[in-house]
Amino acid sequence: MDARVARIGFRNDYSEGAHPRLLQALASASGEQNAGYGLDRHSQRAAELIRAACAQPQAQVHLLAGGTQTNLTAIGAFLRPHQAVIAAESGHIAVHETGAIELTGHKVLTAPGVDGKLTPEAIEALLAVHDNEHLVQPKLVYVSDTTELGTIYRRAELEAISRLCRARGLLLFLDGARLGAALTAEGNDLTLADIAALTDAFYIGGTKNGALLGEALVIVNHALQEDFRYLLKQRGALLAKGMVLGVQFATLFEDGLFFALAEHANRMARRLREGLEAAGARFVVASPTNQQFIVVTAAQLDALARRYDFERWETRADGEVVIRFVTSWATTAAMVDTLCGDYAQLT
Amino acid sequence: MDARVARIGFRNDYSEGAHPRLLQALASASGEQNAGYGLDRHSQRAAELIRAACAQPQAQVHLLAGGTQTNLTAIGAFLRPHQAVIAAESGHIAVHETGAIELTGHKVLTAPGVDGKLTPEAIEALLAVHDNEHLVQPKLVYVSDTTELGTIYRRAELEAISRLCRARGLLLFLDGARLGAALTAEGNDLTLADIAALTDAFYIGGTKNGALLGEALVIVNHALQEDFRYLLKQRGALLAKGMVLGVQFATLFEDGLFFALAEHANRMARRLREGLEAAGARFVVASPTNQQFIVVTAAQLDALARRYDFERWETRADGEVVIRFVTSWATTAAMVDTLCGDYAQLT
Amino acid sequence: MDARVARIGFRNDYSEGAHPRLLQALASASGEQNAGYGLDRHSQRAAELIRAACAQPQAQVHLLAGGTQTNLTAIGAFLRPHQAVIAAESGHIAVHETGAIELTGHKVLTAPGVDGKLTPEAIEALLAVHDNEHLVQPKLVYVSDTTELGTIYRRAELEAISRLCRARGLLLFLDGARLGAALTAEGNDLTLADIAALTDAFYIGGTKNGALLGEALVIVNHALQEDFRYLLKQRGALLAKGMVLGVQFATLFEDGLFFALAEHANRMARRLREGLEAAGARFVVASPTNQQFIVVTAAQLDALARRYDFERWETRADGEVVIRFVTSWATTAAMVDTLCGDYAQLT
Amino acid sequence: MDARVARIGFRNDYSEGAHPRLLQALASASGEQNAGYGLDRHSQRAAELIRAACAQPQAQVHLLAGGTQTNLTAIGAFLRPHQAVIAAESGHIAVHETGAIELTGHKVLTAPGVDGKLTPEAIEALLAVHDNEHLVQPKLVYVSDTTELGTIYRRAELEAISRLCRARGLLLFLDGARLGAALTAEGNDLTLADIAALTDAFYIGGTKNGALLGEALVIVNHALQEDFRYLLKQRGALLAKGMVLGVQFATLFEDGLFFALAEHANRMARRLREGLEAAGARFVVASPTNQQFIVVTAAQLDALARRYDFERWETRADGEVVIRFVTSWATTAAMVDTLCGDYAQLT
Repeated sequence: MDARVARIGFRNDYSEGAHPRLLQALASASGEQNAGYGLDRHSQRAAELIRAACAQPQAQVHLLAGGTQTNLTAIGAFLRPHQAVIAAESGHIAVHETGAIELTGHKVLTAPGVDGKLTPEAIEALLAVHDNEHLVQPKLVYVSDTTELGTIYRRAELEAISRLCRARGLLLFLDGARLGAALTAEGNDLTLADIAALTDAFYIGGTKNGALLGEALVIVNHALQEDFRYLLKQRGALLAKGMVLGVQFATLFEDGLFFALAEHANRMARRLREGLEAAGARFVVASPTNQQFIVVTAAQLDALARRYDFERWETRADGEVVIRFVTSWATTAAMVDTLCGDYAQLT
Repeated sequence: MDARVARIGFRNDYSEGAHPRLLQALASASGEQNAGYGLDRHSQRAAELIRAACAQPQAQVHLLAGGTQTNLTAIGAFLRPHQAVIAAESGHIAVHETGAIELTGHKVLTAPGVDGKLTPEAIEALLAVHDNEHLVQPKLVYVSDTTELGTIYRRAELEAISRLCRARGLLLFLDGARLGAALTAEGNDLTLADIAALTDAFYIGGTKNGALLGEALVIVNHALQEDFRYLLKQRGALLAKGMVLGVQFATLFEDGLFFALAEHANRMARRLREGLEAAGARFVVASPTNQQFIVVTAAQLDALARRYDFERWETRADGEVVIRFVTSWATTAAMVDTLCGDYAQLT
Repeated sequence: MDARVARIGFRNDYSEGAHPRLLQALASASGEQNAGYGLDRHSQRAAELIRAACAQPQAQVHLLAGGTQTNLTAIGAFLRPHQAVIAAESGHIAVHETGAIELTGHKVLTAPGVDGKLTPEAIEALLAVHDNEHLVQPKLVYVSDTTELGTIYRRAELEAISRLCRARGLLLFLDGARLGAALTAEGNDLTLADIAALTDAFYIGGTKNGALLGEALVIVNHALQEDFRYLLKQRGALLAKGMVLGVQFATLFEDGLFFALAEHANRMARRLREGLEAAGARFVVASPTNQQFIVVTAAQLDALARRYDFERWETRADGEVVIRFVTSWATTAAMVDTLCGDYAQLT
Repeated sequence: MDARVARIGFRNDYSEGAHPRLLQALASASGEQNAGYGLDRHSQRAAELIRAACAQPQAQVHLLAGGTQTNLTAIGAFLRPHQAVIAAESGHIAVHETGAIELTGHKVLTAPGVDGKLTPEAIEALLAVHDNEHLVQPKLVYVSDTTELGTIYRRAELEAISRLCRARGLLLFLDGARLGAALTAEGNDLTLADIAALTDAFYIGGTKNGALLGEALVIVNHALQEDFRYLLKQRGALLAKGMVLGVQFATLFEDGLFFALAEHANRMARRLREGLEAAGARFVVASPTNQQFIVVTAAQLDALARRYDFERWETRADGEVVIRFVTSWATTAAMVDTLCGDYAQLT
């Protein structure tokens, strides 16, 4: 028997399966006959709903299976061989995707982030250095919202980056694996339409927000749209039963379920944050979203690990450990309160 | 309204969704918390069941999302840069995957097939020519069972290829996107265990046999197993919610559902074949599996297309057209009989 | 001691080193200080001379080290990931470059050639099939002049291919490893300016026409010029001492030496052809250039191999062998006459 | 007229052409007929001489055209797709090769260097983090001798890195574009045989030490030797007239010319260093080799640039500029003394 299953889980927002409404929709559509490879009516309806939500009637929407696949397919399609990506040092593509972008042939240049966020200054500094043919040519700026640390971009921050990109001929790509959490976070002042207007392409994460799998890539910039289905197919990113993704995204976007699920996860995170704060927890960063990072002693770590499942993020030089709690659409208030109660005992 | 939906569908074995038992299992597992990235207990159980079915206790089993992804991830992992694949001219990787193998850097050398099947002679002929460093080095033989034409390998045929591969230091990889149909076909004398024993790696298709998505890659050759999870992750082939694949394959293999579904599709294909033959249809090749190719006149094509959905495979010089009917786990005898009845009117 | 050196050589047009004038120019320039990486004045002068010879004042000229390097750098730069090359079945990139083009990610589609030459019909046939995203997208047509068989394109033939390419949005790239031989061949009606006008890019071979090494890539199409020095550097194709190439091409093109050397090789080939023909030799193809292919018996082969160095091209089913004689700028009439005399004894 | 040519050049060790003895040898060999693609007797003799100098009778020696080509061909051949390189932040492959290594699919992880040199501690720190399949797998350590800053590895330093690599299953690759300068530097205690014994592969730079072009790649580790000529050909790194490289390396290694030329460059650099030091110059790092970095004011920069050609390395925040002087086999004492004299006037 797997002890981990019995523990209360805050390890990830992809630990649970799909929200019941998505499962029902899948069961219902399974009886139909649908066209393959994303040409089915569910995928087309999902695309329509997403275009409408983004206020971008000319955007292309492609549904892919996962985040790494989406990043590598999009970036590998958008760049010429000598061009490079700029990302924050903590960026997912820079660290946690096993060199998937490099496998497509492109260097990922990293810049120091501020709470996981890129800044125009950091981008400018890289541009200043990369000015001749003996160095790669920076061409695409990669940001995530939420970031790897659970922080979010303010509208002014994203606008500043977008302005710089357009002035300098750079593409702006936003990884939205947790975009639902970002857009429903306290303090957020961005909308889907803002993001679509400010970027060249971005994706909306389903996997971490209630779907079995699925990311919706939105290509706003017309110049990047040409032949994109070829590029999907070539990367193995065109599911034969594309309706599996179509059904889920259509359900998520037909009446706001996407935002409701993310909002729930954030609410549970806030409850968790407030509970832990009240018990004296030390947070690594002020995150308004469903990832919360705290510093614990080795003894606290052991005690918590007996009953809870979570990620050990980083061991510090002094022996203290950064751990991460993640809430999801399926997290309950009872789970959170139990954790907060236990934590209070440890301090 | 989409007229196509109203038509009776023989277009593909991936037109329908998943078999109800798989959907139920997914719904049930959705309430659990599971480890991510294929480390969940469902994926582990699926792997155990498949290893047992293959009589290969040391084999690695990895669950991927689709066939092109599986082909490119496996072949891209198995070869050094200067090495090439040998495939039949009709091979899926040679034609229908948008150059996915070439994108991993490897040439696909093609040889004439016999009814879609490679022969030792054709492989030998390529080896004879490719004998120095100005040409690619053939290293991996790619076969499909069933083939693109619905035909199957006899045990003696696969043994002969396997023997040649081992004698000449070639790897043998079998694309089993429709392996269920092959193994349950009339005239088949291969088992899963035979295939595992004769190849270095192969995959078992779920997408075309009742799953929402999923292919089970079985790596038998130990030398090819090292670090394979890195290679999956790097290609975007490691689903965060790997349990989606694990649950389905565990269900397919826990009590023979995988074979039952394929056997049903083949039975419907046989009924179709016999019905069309009785009505005088001309078949392109003798296929014992769920793909049936017939030649029709333009007038017959138009008449059939009004009520049925199917693939136009090839237009011949004389204006006749090869069309393909595909049956699946969801095809009913009534659908088949209606088609046969209508076809009989056309001749 | 290497017996081969003592034999009279017709193996290749790259068996000898450089023409004395090129060596003198290199010795002279070696005493100077020059800018690196192709920015030296010799390379710039070579580019000017070549642009003038091509009547293309806006063309880019880049000097690379060898033919495979030029092919892979150019084609790898010109195509998007899903795009493919069309070449004749005998095309150098299709056969003799160890999959260099595939290593850049691109499939090479082959079409039957006529005497080694592509035809519009063969290109059209491939376009007709490759019409959707499950197949690669043909985008670049690769031709060689001379071809692998020593034959040449007539102006009308190249015009027809060029017209088709422009009508169908294809790029036309010409491999001119032996372009000197082609342009000075009997029956040739193309000029450098014609080739520049009809193609998007092509290269002029130095290695096989009297240089130590070096190919001059001419990019006529402006859309393909952007950032090309980045792409050269990234492929390792930007020599630090670029003047080594610049000096040689400047010397070759300052007063027609390039054409004079090629014309000499062709003249020697004609003398060889006429001598062998008079002695009854059977030619595989009518080649007006410096490669001549004849069919010999096993006994003839052995006899010739004792005194001459040449390439065994292909062994035929009946045991006869196709051999290739190549002449170069350094071949003398005496060498040819000796061979023809000896051959006459064998028949 | 190009003003730069008239200036006294300290820009690079590849500004001049080849040493007269190499040019004579090339002229002499140009009259011969030689086998192509590196199979000529000159290349074979060069390989023998280098194997002897390295005391590695089983090593493979391959002659390539340039440094970037050698780095990308070797590293691209040695690694599996998910494996990464570790280099110092200032490493040539990390910065100055336009992402050539990434184009082969591999990430370059960088570690802070000490005077341009990697340390075991920095390597260990990267290994500690990269311990699972979501991150690349570090597999090859890349060092340069001399480094980008002109510093050299002491034997104990290279031994420590080599020991760590062998303990942790890492390959050690040494970029010797300026290996001659390193091995003849004051304070050097390494020999060619030491380097061969401590690394898996390395290369000996010819371009920056008196050759027209050419780098000799020495593959000591047998496991990395297999099929290497295929990998050379595929990258466009097999020159048709391979004798061009063979002749030069045979000449460099037949009687110690390689070391004599490097020693001369170092002697000129020492004279320059001592002269500038006497005049109060501030050096960035203590370099015992042919690259010397000093800090100058904007006014000094302008004054020097009027008469001398050199590299502006970096502009500092305070407006001061780091400049680089490089000496070569062709630098004369008079050139150095003139510069030192002029510099003394500026302070």
